Amino acid sequence: MAQRIGRYTIGLGNTAVKGYASVVGKKEGEGPLAAGFDYISEDTAFGEKTWEKAESRLQKDVLSRALNKAGATPDSIDIIFSGDLLNQCIGSSYGLREFNIPFIGLYGACSTMAEALTLSAVFVDTGCAGMAAALTSSHFCAAERQFRFPLEYGGQRPPSAQWTVTGGGAVIVSRDGTGPLIKEVTIGRIADLGVKDINNMGAAMAPAAAETLKDYFADTGRKPDDFDLITTGDLGSDGSELLRELMERENIKLGTNYTDCGLMIYDREKQDVHAGGSGCGCSGSVLCSFILNNMCQGKLGEVLFLSTGALMSPMSVQQGESIPSVAHLVHLSSGRK
Amino acid sequence: MAQRIGRYTIGLGNTAVKGYASVVGKKEGEGPLAAGFDYISEDTAFGEKTWEKAESRLQKDVLSRALNKAGATPDSIDIIFSGDLLNQCIGSSYGLREFNIPFIGLYGACSTMAEALTLSAVFVDTGCAGMAAALTSSHFCAAERQFRFPLEYGGQRPPSAQWTVTGGGAVIVSRDGTGPLIKEVTIGRIADLGVKDINNMGAAMAPAAAETLKDYFADTGRKPDDFDLITTGDLGSDGSELLRELMERENIKLGTNYTDCGLMIYDREKQDVHAGGSGCGCSGSVLCSFILNNMCQGKLGEVLFLSTGALMSPMSVQQGESIPSVAHLVHLSSGRK
Repeated sequence: MAQRIGRYTIGLGNTAVKGYASVVGKKEGEGPLAAGFDYISEDTAFGEKTWEKAESRLQKDVLSRALNKAGATPDSIDIIFSGDLLNQCIGSSYGLREFNIPFIGLYGACSTMAEALTLSAVFVDTGCAGMAAALTSSHFCAAERQFRFPLEYGGQRPPSAQWTVTGGGAVIVSRDGTGPLIKEVTIGRIADLGVKDINNMGAAMAPAAAETLKDYFADTGRKPDDFDLITTGDLGSDGSELLRELMERENIKLGTNYTDCGLMIYDREKQDVHAGGSGCGCSGSVLCSFILNNMCQGKLGEVLFLSTGALMSPMSVQQGESIPSVAHLVHLSSGRK
Repeated sequence: MAQRIGRYTIGLGNTAVKGYASVVGKKEGEGPLAAGFDYISEDTAFGEKTWEKAESRLQKDVLSRALNKAGATPDSIDIIFSGDLLNQCIGSSYGLREFNIPFIGLYGACSTMAEALTLSAVFVDTGCAGMAAALTSSHFCAAERQFRFPLEYGGQRPPSAQWTVTGGGAVIVSRDGTGPLIKEVTIGRIADLGVKDINNMGAAMAPAAAETLKDYFADTGRKPDDFDLITTGDLGSDGSELLRELMERENIKLGTNYTDCGLMIYDREKQDVHAGGSGCGCSGSVLCSFILNNMCQGKLGEVLFLSTGALMSPMSVQQGESIPSVAHLVHLSSGRK
């Protein structure tokens, strides 16, 4: 049964993954994780007329696939936790409106996958939900025109910029799930060290990831070596290097078991994505393919999964503000240790 | 201890309001509820340079006041649930970044107050948090230029349009609170009956409120007469009349104990707000003034508080979409029944 561990962490009982699915776009389907995705859409518009509708379609599709794989119907899900990057989170509200499932909308920017999974696990573990769904999405074309420039503008991107993943992931959580256990969750605090460079989001988010990781290790007494994989959501190459540095200042050394979903999803040599992938769908789709697949196959035992979110808006940046960020952590366990 | 009641409702044990506060703008301070607000800002900009920064300042201020009234420090709060109407919820992330409290960002449009209160109550009741904070805000000037037109444009508004409240509310929830008990919460499903009129949000949201109310009565066996007050968040005059009709079709008659926060906060004869107030801050500030004040003074015993949110974006409307909506419900009790 759920109980607090230390200041920032909640320990859970027998709450587990019952099913999961990932859906991605063409570019992600050409990357190194291609074999693990449930569906790769060759059509960037997912058969819809606008990028925003494409993202809603993606959310609808990824939830349907996760339900199928869990052997669950919409009626059996007591609550959905979902959010996305679009203004007013329309990817989620339009994508999920037909399921008729109680809906809690989230905004955590790219931290949404871990945020949704955290809340799902707490609701299930405490009996407030029998079965819960956690999902999120992002779409490169919709995100570009909202946060940066319309694609038609053809703007140049600096080396520290990242590429928003077109993709999403959905996890069905229940007490009778036979997949990995959700053992602990750590809820992040907002960190803001004053980074203002909208083209270096990894640097803005690394302090939040460092804080949450540090909190988790302090609360639980665990250490990095206890894990087969520690992964952040979308710090990219610059941000993940910065995270290593920030952790070393705290005398916590992240070894070769640490990586970032944004570094895994693309082949940076061949795919011209600069510092790596980003977006809610980055950690969402990597969790629901490579990570959970390998855990279910016994190739990964203990995993720390952090999603990292930058909480600015284009308007707050125009107004000269720095970029606050947050990171939430989920400890997934295959139960062997 | 929290347990499911029926399909959509969660019953809670001894979780109560420990403190609360409301902060509003000048116009709200000229309305009929003025005496109950903790602070009325004569300066619409709250001392800041932009409307968006004003809204962040408002969130910071309303949380500080609620903490003070609860006799709590930021360190004693285990989790904040907050969200707002601004793109990427910057009212919340910038307003709360200095408190250093674990942060769960929400997007439920104007349903946010009930959404945040629901999650706070569940976390506290299950022991996942010792003390939690639920808050939200909206700002007329920031909302107008984001959702409709810049104020300088001076656009005309049809009679069914509503006036976004400049205001916010914050509730501190704990098991040892001596304020009203949070007895039950009902989590809403997304409803969309095809309304596309962006100037009649009440009509778009009424079906969600009807669905959640119906679910609550079915789950608990309670009826409208059991309550001293049943209030929706911001259906306004048109939407609340529609809600009465929709409920009558289900053979549930809402009596004179039903009203809407959007009808309470302004004097519609004198204040030129057309169909009434709206925005996250509408139900937020009315809950944290008139409603909780009267409950604490023994003038209201049992209250059903619903916040209602329209989940569209300006872009989804431009793309010809209808307006999905959601309503979450909280049963507050002074404990007499």
